[in-house]
Amino acid sequence: MALKTAQDYIDSLRNRKLNLYMFGEKLDDYVDHPIIRPSINAMAMTYKMAQEPEYEDLMTTTSSLTGEKINRFTHLHQSTDDLRNKVKMQRMLGQKTGCCFQRCVGMDAFNAVFSTTFEMDAKHGTDYHERFKKFLIYVQQNDLAVDGCMTDARGDRSKSPGQQPDPDAYLHIVERRDDGIIVRGCKQHQTGMINSHEILVMPNNALKDDEKDWAVTFAVPVDAPGMIYVYGRQSCDTRKLEPNKIDVGNINFGGQEVMTIFDDVFVPWERVFMNGETDFSTMLVERFAGYHRQSYGGCKVGTGDTLIGAVKAITDYNGAAKASHIKDKMVEMCHLNETLFACGIACSAEGRKTAAGNYMIDLLLANICKQNVTRFPYEIARIAQDLAGGSLVTMPSAQDFDNPEIGPLVKKYMRGAGDDSTEKRQRLLRLIENITMGCGAVAYLTESMHGAGFTPGAENHDCPIG
Amino acid sequence: MALKTAQDYIDSLRNRKLNLYMFGEKLDDYVDHPIIRPSINAMAMTYKMAQEPEYEDLMTTTSSLTGEKINRFTHLHQSTDDLRNKVKMQRMLGQKTGCCFQRCVGMDAFNAVFSTTFEMDAKHGTDYHERFKKFLIYVQQNDLAVDGCMTDARGDRSKSPGQQPDPDAYLHIVERRDDGIIVRGCKQHQTGMINSHEILVMPNNALKDDEKDWAVTFAVPVDAPGMIYVYGRQSCDTRKLEPNKIDVGNINFGGQEVMTIFDDVFVPWERVFMNGETDFSTMLVERFAGYHRQSYGGCKVGTGDTLIGAVKAITDYNGAAKASHIKDKMVEMCHLNETLFACGIACSAEGRKTAAGNYMIDLLLANICKQNVTRFPYEIARIAQDLAGGSLVTMPSAQDFDNPEIGPLVKKYMRGAGDDSTEKRQRLLRLIENITMGCGAVAYLTESMHGAGFTPGAENHDCPIG
Amino acid sequence: MALKTAQDYIDSLRNRKLNLYMFGEKLDDYVDHPIIRPSINAMAMTYKMAQEPEYEDLMTTTSSLTGEKINRFTHLHQSTDDLRNKVKMQRMLGQKTGCCFQRCVGMDAFNAVFSTTFEMDAKHGTDYHERFKKFLIYVQQNDLAVDGCMTDARGDRSKSPGQQPDPDAYLHIVERRDDGIIVRGCKQHQTGMINSHEILVMPNNALKDDEKDWAVTFAVPVDAPGMIYVYGRQSCDTRKLEPNKIDVGNINFGGQEVMTIFDDVFVPWERVFMNGETDFSTMLVERFAGYHRQSYGGCKVGTGDTLIGAVKAITDYNGAAKASHIKDKMVEMCHLNETLFACGIACSAEGRKTAAGNYMIDLLLANICKQNVTRFPYEIARIAQDLAGGSLVTMPSAQDFDNPEIGPLVKKYMRGAGDDSTEKRQRLLRLIENITMGCGAVAYLTESMHGAGFTPGAENHDCPIG
Amino acid sequence: MALKTAQDYIDSLRNRKLNLYMFGEKLDDYVDHPIIRPSINAMAMTYKMAQEPEYEDLMTTTSSLTGEKINRFTHLHQSTDDLRNKVKMQRMLGQKTGCCFQRCVGMDAFNAVFSTTFEMDAKHGTDYHERFKKFLIYVQQNDLAVDGCMTDARGDRSKSPGQQPDPDAYLHIVERRDDGIIVRGCKQHQTGMINSHEILVMPNNALKDDEKDWAVTFAVPVDAPGMIYVYGRQSCDTRKLEPNKIDVGNINFGGQEVMTIFDDVFVPWERVFMNGETDFSTMLVERFAGYHRQSYGGCKVGTGDTLIGAVKAITDYNGAAKASHIKDKMVEMCHLNETLFACGIACSAEGRKTAAGNYMIDLLLANICKQNVTRFPYEIARIAQDLAGGSLVTMPSAQDFDNPEIGPLVKKYMRGAGDDSTEKRQRLLRLIENITMGCGAVAYLTESMHGAGFTPGAENHDCPIG
Repeated sequence: MALKTAQDYIDSLRNRKLNLYMFGEKLDDYVDHPIIRPSINAMAMTYKMAQEPEYEDLMTTTSSLTGEKINRFTHLHQSTDDLRNKVKMQRMLGQKTGCCFQRCVGMDAFNAVFSTTFEMDAKHGTDYHERFKKFLIYVQQNDLAVDGCMTDARGDRSKSPGQQPDPDAYLHIVERRDDGIIVRGCKQHQTGMINSHEILVMPNNALKDDEKDWAVTFAVPVDAPGMIYVYGRQSCDTRKLEPNKIDVGNINFGGQEVMTIFDDVFVPWERVFMNGETDFSTMLVERFAGYHRQSYGGCKVGTGDTLIGAVKAITDYNGAAKASHIKDKMVEMCHLNETLFACGIACSAEGRKTAAGNYMIDLLLANICKQNVTRFPYEIARIAQDLAGGSLVTMPSAQDFDNPEIGPLVKKYMRGAGDDSTEKRQRLLRLIENITMGCGAVAYLTESMHGAGFTPGAENHDCPIG
Repeated sequence: MALKTAQDYIDSLRNRKLNLYMFGEKLDDYVDHPIIRPSINAMAMTYKMAQEPEYEDLMTTTSSLTGEKINRFTHLHQSTDDLRNKVKMQRMLGQKTGCCFQRCVGMDAFNAVFSTTFEMDAKHGTDYHERFKKFLIYVQQNDLAVDGCMTDARGDRSKSPGQQPDPDAYLHIVERRDDGIIVRGCKQHQTGMINSHEILVMPNNALKDDEKDWAVTFAVPVDAPGMIYVYGRQSCDTRKLEPNKIDVGNINFGGQEVMTIFDDVFVPWERVFMNGETDFSTMLVERFAGYHRQSYGGCKVGTGDTLIGAVKAITDYNGAAKASHIKDKMVEMCHLNETLFACGIACSAEGRKTAAGNYMIDLLLANICKQNVTRFPYEIARIAQDLAGGSLVTMPSAQDFDNPEIGPLVKKYMRGAGDDSTEKRQRLLRLIENITMGCGAVAYLTESMHGAGFTPGAENHDCPIG
Repeated sequence: MALKTAQDYIDSLRNRKLNLYMFGEKLDDYVDHPIIRPSINAMAMTYKMAQEPEYEDLMTTTSSLTGEKINRFTHLHQSTDDLRNKVKMQRMLGQKTGCCFQRCVGMDAFNAVFSTTFEMDAKHGTDYHERFKKFLIYVQQNDLAVDGCMTDARGDRSKSPGQQPDPDAYLHIVERRDDGIIVRGCKQHQTGMINSHEILVMPNNALKDDEKDWAVTFAVPVDAPGMIYVYGRQSCDTRKLEPNKIDVGNINFGGQEVMTIFDDVFVPWERVFMNGETDFSTMLVERFAGYHRQSYGGCKVGTGDTLIGAVKAITDYNGAAKASHIKDKMVEMCHLNETLFACGIACSAEGRKTAAGNYMIDLLLANICKQNVTRFPYEIARIAQDLAGGSLVTMPSAQDFDNPEIGPLVKKYMRGAGDDSTEKRQRLLRLIENITMGCGAVAYLTESMHGAGFTPGAENHDCPIG
Repeated sequence: MALKTAQDYIDSLRNRKLNLYMFGEKLDDYVDHPIIRPSINAMAMTYKMAQEPEYEDLMTTTSSLTGEKINRFTHLHQSTDDLRNKVKMQRMLGQKTGCCFQRCVGMDAFNAVFSTTFEMDAKHGTDYHERFKKFLIYVQQNDLAVDGCMTDARGDRSKSPGQQPDPDAYLHIVERRDDGIIVRGCKQHQTGMINSHEILVMPNNALKDDEKDWAVTFAVPVDAPGMIYVYGRQSCDTRKLEPNKIDVGNINFGGQEVMTIFDDVFVPWERVFMNGETDFSTMLVERFAGYHRQSYGGCKVGTGDTLIGAVKAITDYNGAAKASHIKDKMVEMCHLNETLFACGIACSAEGRKTAAGNYMIDLLLANICKQNVTRFPYEIARIAQDLAGGSLVTMPSAQDFDNPEIGPLVKKYMRGAGDDSTEKRQRLLRLIENITMGCGAVAYLTESMHGAGFTPGAENHDCPIG
C-alpha cells in the first residue's frame, strides 16, 4: 500500500464517531474544530514531509518486516544511523511546525514493545512477539498514526497500583474472557490521541508480583467501544476561536493532550501483548521512556530552533540585534539548544542491537538527554522573553490593530525598526508568547519537564548511578 | 480627609468616561468588566488592608507633608525603616493577591520626582518642587491611586529619541502655551493605568542637550481630554469571560497592562515638573528605576510565596510531599525567593537621605535585586511546574468537571490523595498555571524581566561597575 | 585597659609554649614561622584597623558590659546597626587582607553563648550567664582574640555522638570534679586557633537526653595543659617557604586551620557555660551557626572584592579590558558578590533583640546567605580563571623570572599591554591563583562550602521551610 | 616497526640534552625528576594501554598511510567510528591516570594539518601535503609522541600579531634560507612538551594579508638547537618533592605545562607545512581547535569519572553515602559529566570526510562541547568539595600521620566509618584536593576553561550563529 498523503490522513479521521468532550460538551465534528485542527495539521506534517523529495531519506525507509517503503514513524530502527535519523527527522519537523507533532509516542512504543515481547516470549514461552509483528505490519502497510499510552491517573502517588483505594487509578484488566480481555482505567494527558488511528497501551511503572492485572499491554483502535475522551485545555486555547488568528501565535500548528478513559474496553487476544508478566513491566517502561527521552533531543530542539529564529527576527525589528549583549544571549540560546541535540545524537550513536534485532538507544545517555530537557528549554524561554521585550505581554489584541479608529494609532506606536516592522513584530511577539507561555509552552516547557519521566525504583529521579 | 475604603475606591472609578478599547471595541463600563475587574480588585486591596488593624502599621503612616495619616502608597519615605516597611507591605500584598497590585509605580515615582525636582530647582532656579509637593498633598489627602509612566514606544531601539523617524516614538512636548504644555506620544505597557486616578509621566532615558522636548515630567488625571487607552491582552485573559471561574486560576485578582496614548494632551503649568532639563532626565529615571527595583524585592516575593504555597499543597494532594527530592525542591524555591527578599531588604537598609529629605534606596543593591528578579522567578516557576505534575497543562476544563455525563469520570480520575483532593487539585493546578504561564505569569515572569529595567548609558545592562 | 596595637597582639603570642605539630615535627617558634606568620598578620589587621581613625567607627564600639571602648570583635551586638556594621567591618577586612582574618568565630560564639546561657539559666536555675559575662569582660578588657570551636571529629557520620564506637569522636566530659571538669575530644579544622588567646568550645549538634556528657560549653586558654595542635596543610602552603615570595600570591596574609585535640583538659567551673543541658545544645549551635552565616555575607564578599579587583587589573594588563564580553563577565562577578552582601545586610537589618538583650540576626535570611555562599564564590572563581587567562596555571616560577640567563626571556614573553605589565601580571596571576586554587581557596571556596554549615535535624540541609 | 612499550618510550627520552629550566635552575636529568616524572608516566600510559589486549581495539588501529598497526594517537581518523573511538580512548585514559595524559594535542594537530595542507596545495599549488605525509609516516612508524603548539605569548591582546610592539609576541619567520627557515617566538603553556619527541607548530589565529611571516606551520624535534624550555609551575607542585607521597593526591600521574621558546630555530623545508599562506591560518586553527574541543569530551570526562568515584568512596568512608541529598548530588555530578561525554560523542558521530580523506568532527557540536567543558567541571568540582567534607583543606600532612608521637592521635580523629577508613579517607581527600585545587585542577579546571579556546573573528566567543 502507498504512503498516505497529508490529505489522505486528514480524510481518514473523518469517518469515525468518537466519545469526545470539550468544555463540557460532546463534539461531533472534531476534524475541523478550530481548537483541534492545528494538532491534526501538525500530525499531517509527518505525512506531508514524507512526500517531499528533499526529505524522503529522512522521512521514509524500508520496513524490516515487509521490505516495503514506509514512513519512518512506523519503523523498527535497524542501526545507529536509523536512530540518528530519527532524531534529525524530529528536529526538522519541530522546525516546520514549531510545536509537538505527536507521532513519536507510537514510534517509541513500537520499538519498546517489539524488543520486550521478544524477551518475554523467550522467558515465558508466550507468543506476544508474533502478535505484535502482525499488528505492526498492519500499521506500516496502512501508514497509521498510533498513540502510545503510559501515564495512568495514579491517584495517591505514595501508593502502588495495587494499594490504591480506587483500583482504576491504574489501568488494569477487569475480566479475562475466551476471546480477549476487558480493561478499565484512564491514561492521563495523552499527546496526539484523537488524531491517531490506533492506541498502544503499556503499564505505567514497575509492578509487584501480585499486581498482575495491571501488567497489560495491548492495542485498540481509537474508536473502539468504551473509549471516552476529554480534551485537555491549554493556556490560550480559546484564542483559536477568535476571528483574527494572529493572536494564536502559531496559527496553523499545535499540540493536543487528551484524558483517555477506558470504560470497560474489550481487547481481542491477538492485540494483547502482555498479560500479567509483571517481571517485564519495568523493562518495557524503561525502554519506552528511553526512546522517548531520545525523541526530546530532536523535537524539542526543533521547536527551540523556531523560537530562536523568532527571537533573532524580533531583535532585528526592534533595532537591537547589533548590541553585543543581545548577540551573547542569542549564542547562549543556541548553545543550550545544541547541547540538547548533542544528547539526542549521542544516545543514538551509542545505541545497540536488541535480542529482537531492532536498535535501542543508550539508556544512560538518553536519561542525560531528558534531564537536560527539563532545564534548558526553560532557560531558552527565559532568554527569549528577555530579548523579545515587554510588548510580549502587553500588546493589544489583533482586533485592536484591525479597528479603524484605534488601529492606526496602535500600529504607529507598535512600529519598530523598518517600514514593515509593525506587523512583523506583532506576529513574532505572538509566536514567542505561544511557545513560552501559550499553547506551545505546554509542549515546549511543561511536557519537556514531565514527558518520558519514568525511572523504575528511583522515585522519578533520573539516576544514572543507581 | 479620611483614607478611602476599598468600596470608596471602586466607586471613585465609576464616574469617569474613558477612551478605552479592548478587543477592537470601545468599552463604556470598565469597572465591572470581567477581564478588568480583577485588576481593580487587586488595587482595592491596597485600600482594604489599610483598614485592617493587623496591617495598620504596615499600610499606613504619617505624612511628612501634612502630618496626617496616609496610605503608605502615597508616602515619601522618611527613614530606612520606611524603606523596609515598603518592601514588607509589598510582600504581604503579593501574598494576599497572588499578583501585581499595581499601586507601587506611583509610589516609586513620587519619591523619585520629589528628590529630583528639589535638586533641579537648586541648580536651575525653577519651582518644580513646590508644584510637586502641592500635587502630592492632593494625592495624599484624597488617597488617590497614581500610575507612574516611563516606558515609551521607542520605535527603532538603535536610535535616540531625537533621531527617530517618528518623533512621537518618545513622548514629547509639541507646544508650549501660556497656560501649559501640549504633549504627544505613547507610554507602552503601563501597569495599573485605568484603575488609577492620576498619571505621573517621566522621561524614558538619558537625553542629549538637543532633546529638550522629550525632557518632560507632569501629572494629568486619567480622564484628561486626549487620553486614549488600549487594553493589553494577556495569556489566558478570556478565561475570565467563561462561566466557571475555576479555570481562571487566580479568580479574584489580576494585573492590567495598558497602551496609553497621549493624543495632544494639555497639561497646566502647575502640573509640569520638568520642562526641558535634559541634564536631570538620567537622575530621575535612575531614581525611579532604583525604587522600582527595590519594589520587586517585595511584590514578586509575595507572589512567589503564593506560588510556593500552592505547590506545597499540590504535592500534599498528589501524595508526594514526603519524598526527599520533593522536599529539596521546595527548599530550593524558598531559597531563591528569600534571596530576592534579602535584596529588597538590603537596598532598603542601606538607603540614604536625599537632599530633599526623603530616603533613597542603595542604587547598586537595588540593581542587584533587579538582576536576580530577572532570573529567580523563572527558576521558581520551573520547579513549580516540576512539582505540580503534568496535569497542569492537560486537565480538562472546569465545564467538563461540571458536566453530568462526563464530570463523574473526570473527577474520579483527577482524584489524588485524600477525599477532598479532586477539587483542591483542580483549583491549585489552575492557580499554578495562572502564575507560571497564564495571566499571572505576565507579571510574575515577563514583567520581572522587563520592568524597572533601565540603566542610563549601559545598553540596558545592569552594570554595577559602570 | 587600652586596645591592643597590632604589635601588642603579636608580642602577646610570643610568651607561650604550645604543643604544636606541623609536617611531623614539633614547632617551638611558631610566631615567625613563614607558613604560620601570614595568619598571624591577618588576625593582626583586626587590631591594626581599630587604631586607624578612618575605621574607628567600624572597628570599635562601646561595651554593653563595661561602658569602655572595645574592639567590635569582642562586642555583644546592641542593635541592627551593630549587626550591619559587623558585616561591613568584615567586608573591609576581607578587602585589606584578601583572606580569612579569623577573629569572627569568637565574636559569633560570644553572642550565641551570651543569649543561650541567659535562657538556660531562666529554665534551669543555673548561673552560666554570669560566669560567661565575667569571662567576656576579661576578653574585652584585654582585647583578646578568641577562637570558637564547634566541629567535632565526628567519626561515622551516620551515628550520633553517643552511638560512636569511639566516644571521643565528639568532645565530651570524661570527669566531673569539685573544681571543674575534664574534657576529651578533638575539634577539627579550627580556623584561627594558635593565633588566638582563648578557646570557646560548644557542642557540635543536637543531642539526645542521654548524651549529657557531650552537652558542654567552656573556655580555656590556648596554652592550657593537655591541648595539642596539629597544623592543617593547605594547597600551596610550602610556597611560603620559598625564597621569592611572589609565588605565594597573597604574600603577607593567609588563614590557618588546626586540628585541635583536647587530651584530658581541665576546665575550672567558672569557665564552664553548659554542663549536660542537652535541651539547649540545638539553640546554641543554631545561634552560633546563624551568626557565622551572617559573617560570610561580609568576609567572603571582601575577599571577593580583592579577587574581582585583581581580575579587573589583569584584563587591563592583558589588553583585553575593553571587550564587551569581558565587561559582562566582570559585571556578573560583581553581581554575585553583591548578592552575597545583600544577604549579609538583610539578615542583619531584620535582626531582633534576644531575651538577654543582645541582637540576633534573622535566622532564615542568614541560612539564605549561607546557601548562596556555597555557590557564588565558586562561580566568581570560575569567571576569574576565565578572565585571568591560561598563564594562571602555566607561568614559570618566580625564580625563573629572577634567573640571569632565562629571566630576560621569561619576562619578554610574559609581557602584556603596557611597559610595566610583566611584573604586574606575574603578581596578579599568583594572587588570583592563590584565591581560586591555592591557600586562599581554602577559605574562599572550601570553607565557604563547609563553614557554618549546621542545621539541626536536617541532615545538613539548610531548610527554611523545615 | 613495532609499537613502543611504555619502557621503550621512557628510555627514548633519556638520550637527549634539553635547555630546560625549573625554579631558576637548568635541569640535566628530567626523566627522573619527581616533579616531571608523573607527566612522563601519564604519557607512558598511552603506550602501555596499547599493549593491553583488553584495550587493543581502542588504542591501536591500522594506518591509512602505511597499512601498518599504529597507536591511535598517531592516526588519521578514517570514519565517524574512529572519531568516537578517539573520545572513548581518551575517557578510558582519563580514568586510568586521573589527569591529562598529554598526547592528544599532537593527534589533533595531525588531523588538522593533514586536511588543511591538502586544501592549501589545491589552491596554491604547493606541496605541503606530501611533506606532511612523510613526516607523519615517520611519526607512526616510530610511534612518536608529538606536541602540537598553537598559543603564542600574544603580548597586548587588543593588537594583532603584526601590530605588536614586540614582533616576537607571536611566533614568526625571521629568515627564509635555501635550506629552510628560521623562526622566533614563544608558545605559551604547552601541555606535554618535554615528554614528547617532536613539536608540530601552528599559527595562533586569523591573520591579515600582511602578516605572512606569522603564517607558519612546521615540525622540529624537541631537542632541536635553539629550543629553550621553562617548566610552568602548578598548584602544589612541590609536594612531589616531599618524602611521603600521599599528600600528592595523584601519586603517579600528572600533567606538564611548558613555556616553549623558539630562539631562532632552524627548520628544513621538508618540515615546513605553511609558509605565508595567511588565507589558510583560520582554517587550520579552527580545525585544530575543533578536534581539541572534541578531545575534551573524552579526557575531561575520564578525569571526572575518577573524581566522581573518589567522591563516592569518601561518602562511604564518612558514613554519609545513604543520605538522599548525598545521592542526589552524586547523580548531579554524573549527569554533568555524561552531558560532556554526549557532546564528545555527538560531534564525532556527526563528523564528515574532508577533501583529504580523513574525518573532521562537526565543528558546531565541538564548540558546544567546549562551552560545556568551561562550565561543568567547575560545578562537578564544587559538588565534590561539598561531599568530601571540610577535612579536604584542613587535614594534617602525611608526615603528621607518620609521626610516632602525634600520629596515633591524628589517625584516631581522622577515622570515619569502618576500620580501614582512616588511611582511605586520607588518600581520597588528597586525591580530591589534587583534582579540585591542586596539580590536577590545572588540567581539570583551568585548562578546561582555556584550552582549545580559539574562534576566529569572534573575540574568543564560541559563537555558533556567527
